[in-house]
Amino acid sequence: MPKIVECIPNFSEGRDAGRVEELAKVAKSVPGVTLLDYSSDASHNRSVFTLVGDPDGIAEVAFQLCKKASEIIDMTKQTGEHPRMGATDVVPFVPIREVTVEECVEISKKVAKRVWEELAIPSFLYEYSAAVPGRQNLAAVRKGQFEGMPEKLLLDEWAPDFGERKIHPTAGITAIGARPPLIAYNINLDTSDLEIANAIAKAIRGSSGGFKYCKAIGIMLEGRNIAQVSMNMVNCEGTPLYRVFEAVKFEAKRWGVNILGSELIGLAHSKALIDCAEYYLQIEDFDYDTQVLENHLI
Amino acid sequence: MPKIVECIPNFSEGRDAGRVEELAKVAKSVPGVTLLDYSSDASHNRSVFTLVGDPDGIAEVAFQLCKKASEIIDMTKQTGEHPRMGATDVVPFVPIREVTVEECVEISKKVAKRVWEELAIPSFLYEYSAAVPGRQNLAAVRKGQFEGMPEKLLLDEWAPDFGERKIHPTAGITAIGARPPLIAYNINLDTSDLEIANAIAKAIRGSSGGFKYCKAIGIMLEGRNIAQVSMNMVNCEGTPLYRVFEAVKFEAKRWGVNILGSELIGLAHSKALIDCAEYYLQIEDFDYDTQVLENHLI
Repeated sequence: MPKIVECIPNFSEGRDAGRVEELAKVAKSVPGVTLLDYSSDASHNRSVFTLVGDPDGIAEVAFQLCKKASEIIDMTKQTGEHPRMGATDVVPFVPIREVTVEECVEISKKVAKRVWEELAIPSFLYEYSAAVPGRQNLAAVRKGQFEGMPEKLLLDEWAPDFGERKIHPTAGITAIGARPPLIAYNINLDTSDLEIANAIAKAIRGSSGGFKYCKAIGIMLEGRNIAQVSMNMVNCEGTPLYRVFEAVKFEAKRWGVNILGSELIGLAHSKALIDCAEYYLQIEDFDYDTQVLENHLI
Repeated sequence: MPKIVECIPNFSEGRDAGRVEELAKVAKSVPGVTLLDYSSDASHNRSVFTLVGDPDGIAEVAFQLCKKASEIIDMTKQTGEHPRMGATDVVPFVPIREVTVEECVEISKKVAKRVWEELAIPSFLYEYSAAVPGRQNLAAVRKGQFEGMPEKLLLDEWAPDFGERKIHPTAGITAIGARPPLIAYNINLDTSDLEIANAIAKAIRGSSGGFKYCKAIGIMLEGRNIAQVSMNMVNCEGTPLYRVFEAVKFEAKRWGVNILGSELIGLAHSKALIDCAEYYLQIEDFDYDTQVLENHLI
């Protein structure tokens, strides 16, 4: 089976369709790499690309995208609701098939080195690639944003992992790293009481004592007048979808609230879903790699 | 996305490893076709091959396998526990991706025509390919087996769909047809009472009033001293796995019996499993084709 790595670079441009198309053209230009999806958000002024390819191809396309973004995005003029620190803001590499997290860490370092040497853009290694404690968390790395970075980089603990202690004048600085597959998963409750969704979110998320790899908040779906537990499942091997689903169900019972349904946003890896079938159908001795026909076709 | 057809030819040879390897060599010889699996059963004296490929490739490999089997298997000397009527006993074509059942029916007819014209082996079209009522069912088509076929073919209603009213002297006659993906799925019960498994099997199988696309019998797992509901799910779009699982669960309750677990034998299509995740997680508006990452990699 071939090695497949996913890369989901985020760019600080979500309003100028012409620039986004320039990035898309680069995203499609590397053999062995497929652009699965790209979408832009105007209020965030941000675009997210989803690519898959072999390790060499994905490293090449990630570099070429950083290069193009540095040519067409000027962070000194960029505004938007989403926190950001660079033209290419963050470049995560995700192991999909026959690839370890360690190999993705190597890819991230290779790309970060080249981005500094050839483009003079410094970078922080984050998540699994973090070499310094406190850099696993992207939010902590990005704190201060583009405008605050010149000052932040001079602090003892915030030297970039690659590059000097000053940002690229227009492209800023980029976070690059390996992370597990992430799934955006929401559960809709049969209540219009946001406080119940918030209480359930607090019960299940890792940061407040729940499941380690689950991030969760309560939000209102105004159109349907129902509350939702909105989650980022950052590692479905460690915290499977069925486990949070069952936990939300039993927590909701506390208030006599039922689950109306759930939503899977964007792409999910088949294993995260098939793991749930395996759980609910109580399948004994199931082997995902060999027993799923499609895994032989990739 | 490329068109992918699965073919699972069954050959009346499961004892002579040399002959099976000759078939395997042919199975690997056609570009665009992958041999996923092959296994032999000595008491059945039968081998089952699982291949996937594009429509043209799969038609070619199916023909070449029929040719090789006719050269190395002599049905006048073949014995075994499994019912059979030809050296190549049955050739099912299954739509996997971007292919309709109708296209598989066309492939089956093309192969059946060529097998007659070039190998002088007659065939019955069965399952979805059946042109004559009563030939959907493979067991009915095969009734009488190799030894009874010369007489059967002379009956008004049993002229072959391709070929004359007489079998090939050593290769017999073959059933060729399109069918939906089939999954072998068993549910283990927390009882050693075979009668309970038989009663549940009767309740859920289509032939006795249960689910249309479920075939089921009760069997004993002697090693574990438990009874099992052993099923062939012949169309998981029509009768999904979760539905028989839940039905077996509520039927078993009638006797105070619980489900210990289940078994998936061989390969399953990811959709059949992900449909179960979609059901149990109550996912709203899920799109299997676009939201499963691996579907973009095939």
